[in-house]
Amino acid sequence: MDLEFKLKGTFRTSADPADAKETIEQLFEEAGETILTKGAPAGQGAQIRSWNLKENGVEVEIVSGRYVRAHDAIIRLRKPLAGKLGKEFHIGVRGVDVDHFTISVPAEQSVGNLKIPHVSSMEFKDGAITLELDVGESELENRVPDRILTLMEDKINEKLYGGKTEHWNLLWESEKKEPKFTQDPTPEMVKQGWIKRGASRGQWIHGPQSTKLFRTFEKIVYDELLEPLGYKEMIFPKLIPWEVWQKSGHAKGVYPEIYYVCPPKTRDPKFWEEVSDHYKVTHEVPVELIKSKIGDPIGGMCYAQCPPFWMFLQGETIPTTEFPITVFDRSGTSHRYESGGIHGMERVDEFHRIEIVWLGPKDDVLDCARELHERYMHIFNDILDLEWRKAWVTPWFMAQEGLTGISEQGETGTTDYEASLPYRGEDGEWLEFQNVSVNGTKYPSGFNVKCQSGEELWSGCSGVGLERWTSAFLAQKGLDPENWPDEFIKRFGELPEGIRFL
Amino acid sequence: MDLEFKLKGTFRTSADPADAKETIEQLFEEAGETILTKGAPAGQGAQIRSWNLKENGVEVEIVSGRYVRAHDAIIRLRKPLAGKLGKEFHIGVRGVDVDHFTISVPAEQSVGNLKIPHVSSMEFKDGAITLELDVGESELENRVPDRILTLMEDKINEKLYGGKTEHWNLLWESEKKEPKFTQDPTPEMVKQGWIKRGASRGQWIHGPQSTKLFRTFEKIVYDELLEPLGYKEMIFPKLIPWEVWQKSGHAKGVYPEIYYVCPPKTRDPKFWEEVSDHYKVTHEVPVELIKSKIGDPIGGMCYAQCPPFWMFLQGETIPTTEFPITVFDRSGTSHRYESGGIHGMERVDEFHRIEIVWLGPKDDVLDCARELHERYMHIFNDILDLEWRKAWVTPWFMAQEGLTGISEQGETGTTDYEASLPYRGEDGEWLEFQNVSVNGTKYPSGFNVKCQSGEELWSGCSGVGLERWTSAFLAQKGLDPENWPDEFIKRFGELPEGIRFL
Repeated sequence: MDLEFKLKGTFRTSADPADAKETIEQLFEEAGETILTKGAPAGQGAQIRSWNLKENGVEVEIVSGRYVRAHDAIIRLRKPLAGKLGKEFHIGVRGVDVDHFTISVPAEQSVGNLKIPHVSSMEFKDGAITLELDVGESELENRVPDRILTLMEDKINEKLYGGKTEHWNLLWESEKKEPKFTQDPTPEMVKQGWIKRGASRGQWIHGPQSTKLFRTFEKIVYDELLEPLGYKEMIFPKLIPWEVWQKSGHAKGVYPEIYYVCPPKTRDPKFWEEVSDHYKVTHEVPVELIKSKIGDPIGGMCYAQCPPFWMFLQGETIPTTEFPITVFDRSGTSHRYESGGIHGMERVDEFHRIEIVWLGPKDDVLDCARELHERYMHIFNDILDLEWRKAWVTPWFMAQEGLTGISEQGETGTTDYEASLPYRGEDGEWLEFQNVSVNGTKYPSGFNVKCQSGEELWSGCSGVGLERWTSAFLAQKGLDPENWPDEFIKRFGELPEGIRFL
Repeated sequence: MDLEFKLKGTFRTSADPADAKETIEQLFEEAGETILTKGAPAGQGAQIRSWNLKENGVEVEIVSGRYVRAHDAIIRLRKPLAGKLGKEFHIGVRGVDVDHFTISVPAEQSVGNLKIPHVSSMEFKDGAITLELDVGESELENRVPDRILTLMEDKINEKLYGGKTEHWNLLWESEKKEPKFTQDPTPEMVKQGWIKRGASRGQWIHGPQSTKLFRTFEKIVYDELLEPLGYKEMIFPKLIPWEVWQKSGHAKGVYPEIYYVCPPKTRDPKFWEEVSDHYKVTHEVPVELIKSKIGDPIGGMCYAQCPPFWMFLQGETIPTTEFPITVFDRSGTSHRYESGGIHGMERVDEFHRIEIVWLGPKDDVLDCARELHERYMHIFNDILDLEWRKAWVTPWFMAQEGLTGISEQGETGTTDYEASLPYRGEDGEWLEFQNVSVNGTKYPSGFNVKCQSGEELWSGCSGVGLERWTSAFLAQKGLDPENWPDEFIKRFGELPEGIRFL
C-alpha cells in the first residue's frame, strides 16, 4: 500500500451555497489541473474524490499521496473558493472544519501503541499503519499532519533499522603504541588520592593532581590550537531553558538524560519557613513538602554546552567581514544522567569540557574544521603521544535527537576521536575522547542568524572532554610522570602533592 | 513567666509494680539530689512533681526549666528504675510513653501560627508561648524538644530584633578616588556588545571583552595571591545533593534561593517517547507531562561553592603536618534565585567565582585570613586602584541560615569588601564585591574532619565574585581602557574585538 492522506472537510459558508453549484464544480475541476497538482510529479498530487453542498457549507473529500498533501490541498482551495463565492454570490467562507482525516503509512509491522498529540486512533492492518487525526484548521495550517507523518516514518525506520549499530567509518589511525600501563586508571587515581567520589551520582571531586592534568590539557589546547587559530574566549550560560533547546533541536529527544531545574515558586522566606522549621526540628529534608513549593521545570543543567551561545547571535545579521567567527567556552560543568552502575572517570554525570564553536559561510566552516583536525593531530601525536584513531560517525546533533545513520548533507557530520584503552585488552572498545562536528545550517537556521551577503551560514563545534582526555592519557601512560612523554612533562611541570589522610 | 518543660509520661512495666512502691519512692527521692540536678546550677534542675503506680506502669510528672530538661530527666530515670525493678522484683521496663508534654517559652508577642513537626498546638498567653508536643521516646532521645525550643527562641528573637539592620562595622577604608566614569556600567556593556542577556532569568552571555576581564581578574588573583601563598587548585562538584547541605548547615535556611535539580525517573527512552513525540508534533515542550516523569528534587545547583569540597575530607583524620590545607576552585557557575526585577551585572542568578578555602588549627586559619587580607589590599590598591572599604558583618554562614547578628565565637566571622559605585551618587549603597570568612569549627565539625593531634580544626573561605569585581571596576573606571590603571593594563593587554552585528 502507498502513503495516503484522506481528508473529509467542510468549508463553512455564510449562506446556502446552492446557487453557486456550477461555479464550484468548475473551480474544483480546474483545481485538479492547477493548485492541487502544482509542484507534484506528473500524475501525482491531490484529488477531490467527491464533494457536495450542504445548507451552510461545501463538503469535500480529498485524497493524496506524498505530494500536495490533502491538508495542503484544502488550504490551497480555500482562497480561490472564497474569491468566487464572495465576488459572484456574496457568500463568505468562514473557515474549514475537518470532519475526518486519516493518514495511512506503509509499514511491515506495528510500532506499538503510542500516545501522539492529535492522533485519536492508530491501527496496523494490511501492510500499513492508519492514523485517525483529530485536528482543526489551525493544525492544518501549522503542518501538524506533516510532523505526524515524519514521526511515524522515523518510528517505522527505527523498528526496521534500529537494531543496526550506529554508523562508523574509519578515517585515520595512528601506529600501535606500546602501553606504559595496563590497569584501569580510575581505581588507581582513587588509591593514590587524586580523586574522590562526590556526594551525587557519577560525580568526582578532583584533588590537586588531576586538576593540574585538566589545566595542562586546557593550556595545551589554548597554546597549540585556540590561540594560534585566533579563537576568542566567551562565557556561555550553564542553566538552559526550554527555549534554547527548542531552537537547537535538543527538545526533540534529549529528555532521558537531562538534570531538570525547577525554581522556587517564590523567594518569600515566609513561604519556605515550614520547610526550614521541619529541617531544624527533624534534621531531615522534607522532600515532599519541597516538591509542592517548587515551580515547573524551566529547563535543565548544561548538556551540550554550545546551544546557549547561540542566543548571543539570535535574530542578528552579521557583516560578511566578521567571518569566520571562532569562539570557545570553558566556564563550567555539563551534566548528563548517564546509564546505571558505577563508572570510572570516562563516563560520568558531571564533566568538564572546552567547547569550541565556529561559524561562517560553508567554505570557511570546512576550512576551520580542517585546521582543527591538523592541530589535534599535532597534539595527540607530538605532545600526548597517544594511540588513537578518527572515524566518521552518526552526527551528535542527530544522535541527541534520537536518530541513527549519517547526515544527508554531504560534508556535514561528526568525526569522533577515539583512543585505545590497554586495560580493556586487544579487542576492547576504544574510548571516544572528543569530536569535531560540521553541523551545516542547523544552528544558524534554528537561531535565525543571517549573513549580510545573504550567503548561507554553516557552523561547527568541537568538544574537548577533559575527563575523557584524562582517561585516555592515563590509561595508556599510567599515573607515574616518569612514563609521561617529554613534550607533555615540559608543559605539565611537577606533579603537585595532594591531601594526605591517616 | 520562666521557661518551663512539663512532661507527663509512663514507664511501661512487664508486671504490676505495686510491690515495688517503696523502692520506687526511694529512687525518685534520691534522684532529686543526683541525676535530676546533676550539671544544673544550684537550686535548678528537674523535679518530679507527682508520680503514681498503675497496673502496668509507673506514671511520672516532671517539670523543669532550661537545665536537665524534663525529657532528659525521664530518659535519665529509665536505666536506674529498670535496674531496681529488674534486680529486686523481676519486673522489666518496656519503654517510655509520653502522655502529655508542653514547653512554655517566655515571649512578648505571638510568633504567628506555624506548622512545626511534632507540635500539635501552640498558644500565646500570659507572656509565654505554650507548645503541646506530640512525641515518643525516640524523639526524646533524639533531642527533638531541644530543637523545637531553639527554633522558638530564634523566632521570638527574630520578632523582637528582626527589624534591625544586619551587623556592619567598618574596619578599613581607602582614600576617596576621583571616578573616571559615573554611569551604570551594565547598560554601557550591553550597548558596546560586551554582554547580552541569556535566555534564563538573571543570566548573561559574555563576549570576548568581558570574558577577558574575568580571566585577567583570575590571573591577578592567581599570580598575586594564590600562587605566592601556596594555594592548590581543585575541582569541586557543582550539583549539590541534600547530604552536603545537611552537613554544611545550608539545609536550615537556603530554600528560597535554590535552583532545585530533579533527575529523570528513568533513562529508558521508551519512558520518554511520549514527551519527544509531543514535542515533535506540536513544537511545544509538554511541561506538565515532564513534571510527571521527573523524580523528587535531589538537591540543587551550586550555591555557596565550598560545601561540596568538604566531602573530599569527610570522616578523615588528617596528619598534623598537612596544615594549613589551602585550596581553591574555579570550575563552574553558582546559581541563586535572586529577588525580582531586572538587574545589572552586580546581581545575577548565574555567576562565576573563585572560591578559596583553607583549614587547620585555629592559629593557622587566622594567619591565612590575615595573609589573604594583605594580598587583597595590594590588589585593590596597587593594581585595580579602587575606592573600597572593609567591614565586619553578619557571617555569611549565619546569613545563609536565616540568622542576623554576629557570631558568638570571637574571631569567627565575615569581612565584606565593598566598593563605591559612583553612578549611585555620594550617598549611594556600596557594592559588596567579595568577602573573607573565618568559619570556626563549623565545617570540620559538620563534615567530621579531624586533626591527628586531636587539636580543634577551624576553616575559612573567601569568594572572589568575578561579576562583582567587574561591576566595581567598570563602575569606577569605565569601559575605555585609556582610563584603566597602568598596573591593570600591563596584565590585561589589549581589549579584544567582540562580535559585530548590523
